[in-house]
Amino acid sequence: MAVTEECAMSEPGLKTLSVALGERSYDILIGRGLLGGAAPITRVLRGRHVVIVSNDVVAPLYLERLQAGLQDFAVQAHILRDGEVHKTPDAMLGIIDAALAAGAGRDALFIALGGGVVGDITGFAAATFMRGGDFLQVPTTLLAQVDSSVGGKTGVNHPAGKNLLGAFHQPKRVLIDIDTLETLPAREFSAGMAEVIKYGAIVDADFFDWLADNFDALMAREPSALQQAIFRSCQLKAQIVAEDETEQGRRALLNFGHTFGHAIEACTRYQRWLHGEAVALGMVMAARMSGLPDHQIERLVALLVAAGLPVAHPDIPADALYAAMGHDKKVAQGRIRLILLRTLGKALITADYDDARLMAVLEGSA
Amino acid sequence: MAVTEECAMSEPGLKTLSVALGERSYDILIGRGLLGGAAPITRVLRGRHVVIVSNDVVAPLYLERLQAGLQDFAVQAHILRDGEVHKTPDAMLGIIDAALAAGAGRDALFIALGGGVVGDITGFAAATFMRGGDFLQVPTTLLAQVDSSVGGKTGVNHPAGKNLLGAFHQPKRVLIDIDTLETLPAREFSAGMAEVIKYGAIVDADFFDWLADNFDALMAREPSALQQAIFRSCQLKAQIVAEDETEQGRRALLNFGHTFGHAIEACTRYQRWLHGEAVALGMVMAARMSGLPDHQIERLVALLVAAGLPVAHPDIPADALYAAMGHDKKVAQGRIRLILLRTLGKALITADYDDARLMAVLEGSA
Repeated sequence: MAVTEECAMSEPGLKTLSVALGERSYDILIGRGLLGGAAPITRVLRGRHVVIVSNDVVAPLYLERLQAGLQDFAVQAHILRDGEVHKTPDAMLGIIDAALAAGAGRDALFIALGGGVVGDITGFAAATFMRGGDFLQVPTTLLAQVDSSVGGKTGVNHPAGKNLLGAFHQPKRVLIDIDTLETLPAREFSAGMAEVIKYGAIVDADFFDWLADNFDALMAREPSALQQAIFRSCQLKAQIVAEDETEQGRRALLNFGHTFGHAIEACTRYQRWLHGEAVALGMVMAARMSGLPDHQIERLVALLVAAGLPVAHPDIPADALYAAMGHDKKVAQGRIRLILLRTLGKALITADYDDARLMAVLEGSA
Repeated sequence: MAVTEECAMSEPGLKTLSVALGERSYDILIGRGLLGGAAPITRVLRGRHVVIVSNDVVAPLYLERLQAGLQDFAVQAHILRDGEVHKTPDAMLGIIDAALAAGAGRDALFIALGGGVVGDITGFAAATFMRGGDFLQVPTTLLAQVDSSVGGKTGVNHPAGKNLLGAFHQPKRVLIDIDTLETLPAREFSAGMAEVIKYGAIVDADFFDWLADNFDALMAREPSALQQAIFRSCQLKAQIVAEDETEQGRRALLNFGHTFGHAIEACTRYQRWLHGEAVALGMVMAARMSGLPDHQIERLVALLVAAGLPVAHPDIPADALYAAMGHDKKVAQGRIRLILLRTLGKALITADYDDARLMAVLEGSA
């Protein structure tokens, strides 16, 4: 008994974060063992039909566990091929086909079991299914847990660019089962940490400090530390999104490192770096562009390095990066707005910056 | 001058109806000659790119007139094939492809020039374009003018059923140019009148009386009468939709005649009757199901007949209709809810009705 109690004490309890969006408010549940229990799912299920969408990497690991709790319902599993390259309109339509073939109606619940790609495609399918179906997310990567859980962005890619088709569609609930991070490859775990670090950098200096203090525990994937980092990341994103649900103003802060990062990804055709890695490189560029004092840049770089992320200049010609930034869809009125840091923990959106300095940063000489 | 003034007096002026939906509020402009003027369009245009979507029947008639006013902008015309059978996901994706090929960005304006099918596909494309693009409707059929102008429903068909993919997406503005009705085939004009009559029947006995009093002028397509009928129809629909934007309760009243009508359409594979004709048949059935006094049923039937609409029992086996009603997606908890009339001008939603009477109505014996 004593042992059990000690175990229980070291185990994190369930944490719940409410994302306040009026009628579209929902809860994010963060804990261990969530996949095995049906109650967190059936609580938001209006009918009998459940359509679980996963991919061929995640499904073998966790689909059975998720299905086990849903034996009393009409469950249809639909398995996508893993990878961003399969995030297509056809993949989305395939989910609709599968749902209709299974007899799903307006009260069906679509569950996304997987990373950001699975979540984006499934959410978009749910958004369009009979003009708006219920959607529950079970993100299984750190990146999806701290990024896709909040914001309601769904979509698929088009040959002309990423996420060019999509919808804003809020989930009914998000279940973050920390246990699923046990099987996440190290490189993907690191990529998720890039976004966690981003939240500290843009809006919460205390969280940044906490991350620095607890980074060994996080990288060792200790559940309590992970739960706290995920909870706070989702909470910070939720605060920003609640102020700006459809991305007109303050929400742009979340793109810190992303304008540079997207340019890096585009110049390397999304082959060389994971998204989180490109964001890490982008955050370093954005920090240099911000003219932060050296010791602050060093703190940011040190944390990214500790997370196993790349920080060196990506060795891409500056003019190629500049052109790629110009084609980013976040361009307003011709001049690129950048997300820069006033200081670590406080970001701003600005079109008022020095072009020569931008070129120097893109060249790696600033 | 005197002649001009007399003409001006007999001409209807522009009428504007504001559809109040908070941030998504918009205006419906109803008048003559609207297609030729750029101002009503450029008023809601945020950028330079305009994507006009039409079909191969309407484009030869009105595309040039619409484009003439937009010569200062980057206008891309995309022509769909006419007909419900082409209301597919592929047609929607084709619009996205065309928009991206033309360099359209987030500030592009999608214009639907045509009937309900063009409006539904274009609206859905706009809804998903970069997670929500601007959309302006130029409905050129009476049905689209009085039905699709209000409600924000967009979508495409799936082999498993109609409108199974879609979104609620409000237009930025609707331009109803009454002149476009001059070229509308008589049968389609009649089909539109079915919906006009419906509004009177469900919520406005005075409007029903006005329609009966002015029916000759309407059928002669006199602009002033048409303008008034379209304005009041849109106004009534807007009042209902404003109370219930996402179709949970009162909005179901708009389905008066449609549950029966959809069953009739399904049983005849959408080949025999136009939607408005099936709705006319369905309204007669619904009126009989409502147990209205004979003189009220006769008034409704007389108006439908005057509009050139079918009213006789559709000669489909009752059990086929019953089964088709059960597969309609507006089923709640197993039992079909019907929209019935308390009296002409007042509808209600109910699942409390006599099944034997329903079978008698479906058989044509009640």
